[in-house]
Amino acid sequence: MRVAAARRYDQRVPKLSIGLIGCGTVGGAFVELLTERREIIATRTGVELTIGQIAVRSPEKYRDRGIAAELFTDDPQSVVENPEIDVVVELIGGLDPARALIRRALELGKPVVTGNKELLAAHGTELYAAAAASGVDLLFEAAVAGGIPLVRVLRESLVGEDVNRVTGIINGTTNFILTKMAEEGADYADALAEAQRLGYAEADPTADVEGFDAGAKAAIIASIVFGAGVVPDDVHHEGISGVTAADIESARRLGYVIKALAVIDREDGPDGPAIGVRVHPAMVPHHHPLATVNDSFNAVFVEGTAVGELMFYGRGAGGDPTASAVLGDVIDAAVNLMNGDAARLVISDRATVRSVDAMRSQFYLTMKVSDRPGVLAQVAAIFGQHGVSIQTMEQWGAGDEAEIYFILHETTTAAIRETLAELSKVDAVQGIGSVIRLVDGR
Amino acid sequence: MRVAAARRYDQRVPKLSIGLIGCGTVGGAFVELLTERREIIATRTGVELTIGQIAVRSPEKYRDRGIAAELFTDDPQSVVENPEIDVVVELIGGLDPARALIRRALELGKPVVTGNKELLAAHGTELYAAAAASGVDLLFEAAVAGGIPLVRVLRESLVGEDVNRVTGIINGTTNFILTKMAEEGADYADALAEAQRLGYAEADPTADVEGFDAGAKAAIIASIVFGAGVVPDDVHHEGISGVTAADIESARRLGYVIKALAVIDREDGPDGPAIGVRVHPAMVPHHHPLATVNDSFNAVFVEGTAVGELMFYGRGAGGDPTASAVLGDVIDAAVNLMNGDAARLVISDRATVRSVDAMRSQFYLTMKVSDRPGVLAQVAAIFGQHGVSIQTMEQWGAGDEAEIYFILHETTTAAIRETLAELSKVDAVQGIGSVIRLVDGR
Repeated sequence: MRVAAARRYDQRVPKLSIGLIGCGTVGGAFVELLTERREIIATRTGVELTIGQIAVRSPEKYRDRGIAAELFTDDPQSVVENPEIDVVVELIGGLDPARALIRRALELGKPVVTGNKELLAAHGTELYAAAAASGVDLLFEAAVAGGIPLVRVLRESLVGEDVNRVTGIINGTTNFILTKMAEEGADYADALAEAQRLGYAEADPTADVEGFDAGAKAAIIASIVFGAGVVPDDVHHEGISGVTAADIESARRLGYVIKALAVIDREDGPDGPAIGVRVHPAMVPHHHPLATVNDSFNAVFVEGTAVGELMFYGRGAGGDPTASAVLGDVIDAAVNLMNGDAARLVISDRATVRSVDAMRSQFYLTMKVSDRPGVLAQVAAIFGQHGVSIQTMEQWGAGDEAEIYFILHETTTAAIRETLAELSKVDAVQGIGSVIRLVDGR
Repeated sequence: MRVAAARRYDQRVPKLSIGLIGCGTVGGAFVELLTERREIIATRTGVELTIGQIAVRSPEKYRDRGIAAELFTDDPQSVVENPEIDVVVELIGGLDPARALIRRALELGKPVVTGNKELLAAHGTELYAAAAASGVDLLFEAAVAGGIPLVRVLRESLVGEDVNRVTGIINGTTNFILTKMAEEGADYADALAEAQRLGYAEADPTADVEGFDAGAKAAIIASIVFGAGVVPDDVHHEGISGVTAADIESARRLGYVIKALAVIDREDGPDGPAIGVRVHPAMVPHHHPLATVNDSFNAVFVEGTAVGELMFYGRGAGGDPTASAVLGDVIDAAVNLMNGDAARLVISDRATVRSVDAMRSQFYLTMKVSDRPGVLAQVAAIFGQHGVSIQTMEQWGAGDEAEIYFILHETTTAAIRETLAELSKVDAVQGIGSVIRLVDGR
């Protein structure tokens, strides 16, 4: 099939035809970008790319948008099956029918480019294996960090590197909200409302603010980095809706900023190495490269044994940046198809994943206490009993208004949970305030 | 030749043998890294990589370093010619004999990985063409930004992108010196001495502090980004030795940090687009992502029409990070060789390059003046006569100690030079102080 596709053209510059499934913000930007850049791409890569067919739900809505009407169909299956289509670009999102369409395209020996994080997070292992079996590409730069070329770097540049940890700001909505809270002293509800007004957040913001979007991306990153399948159910989520203006101010005074992070790491456990994947707000020291990543920008910080620290920064969403990532993948897929070649991605069936209980962090913790003699000793003793050691402690206010904050040395989530349960039984402890992880300083 | 190499092995995991030329800090780290990671590389890529031969000036010095003595030779030519060697890694640096060795390896159909920025900057176009003619890879990630996977991203992910400008901190020595000056208020000479003591700067620091190292890297980046050959003579250099503690303090008060930057851009001129490549100290607004890149870290900021702003951050030098980049390239070259494939890089013969006179920037400028009525009007008139418009002006001190600083709107280097020449003829102008470019805010 692939040889046939490559041989069909015998002109000087071979042409490949792209079938696009879905033509929303990213798809529309992709068509425009490809049209603008076609000549230069042909010069640089030796392949001429054209849009052969576009499947959308309602083709009649796409009249007068500068794209020839005869390219449109409402039948995505026909695009995949069309023998004139060499490369399939899937931008409809969701599990079905995207999953079956991609599988069928790969079966037919057609490389696929997709931006579908939900599908890859849930069924990536199956789809990567299908691509490998057909010997064609399944590329998905746009699914992970928008315009940031992270997947290529992880798959290719760092394939020989011993990556220890990946820490990412990979959701633009939550980064926008937390940036507004930090810059304007706004509270969460107001910052969310502003994000919604500006189109950075959906009317129902759950997928973003509760970490499901970042969790799907983190599962994909973990699978690539560690070569073992990680699915969304493996990811521990904590949202940002509990972060208060007071937390952000307190973080600032201590030299930190609060960011919504995805943290992907590997630790040696009793049964060999186990992967941890978690999404939660965290306090980042202000000198850390991630601390200055603001507004809706994304960034991914990679730590490897030989390479040291790397960071990749850019637009994690938006039509044009994401279309740029799709175009990079389409060019790669097209050149590989002409050469009868494909990118390789080996993912073993399932990863061994640590439960959140076993994941280690430093913690920031606040509690309201009665300011009576002996209370602090009692609280400190409970930390000690659970093996949790205190790095910094400070009391603000006095009397019944006293609040203590702690920064704790690295410990497990389980130890913190047990400590908090015990503390809540102490009379003088009127309430636990915020519990926020720290990412370690450098 | 390539088919022969690929077919020589018929075991389940094919083996490729690497010939290493040069075994200093990076070469030694590369041998160690490859040895440690061989199994996982074989699993992930399907190719087993071994070190077949190592050419060094004095093989006897490499006894007892944990590398088999019989791998060493003092004849690099024999490594290139050795029919058992499939991939050549050149890490000796300098123009000769590296140039002839690489050409010969490519002629023999052997992919080459090199970290030789001097050679690629001077003769890249010739060598890229030789690689293309042989249909094998010439990869050079390690030559540009150490461990940061910049070249792959520019060559592959962004091959379809309309890149407008690349702004990089691509010399760790000067970034270390400027960071020390900013953090400790140190003057240039003391910060340089500290860099030398810590091994970040050479005894003769000229190549770093005068911008020749960054200039060579900038020439390579410009060639890749714009697909046209740029050589070191095309690069305008200004060193950092004139930057004073007072400049840094003044920048800080204005909301800037001073960084040694390489700026690569393209402007439409009367004869079509022309490339500008320059290396100089510059004032970077403190909210710019490059402003927080400190110590010996490097970072490259890329602006593209569709992708927007990207930044790549990491270690630009050092044995392990650079070896990681070499390994990434070796794996790529090996996999491509097995597939009878090669990365593609189209560089037209020579770029049209703008002279520094035509390059536009905002400028920061200080001058000592006699604090007399009418002086400022006289100075302002001279700016106006040369079409240079003032954004900000402030006078510090009074009487014969008066100093004025200006921030000027974007203008050409020629206009600034002519303005300064005229100003120096004005009686009341006692001297021009610093002239430092600004990178524009976002």
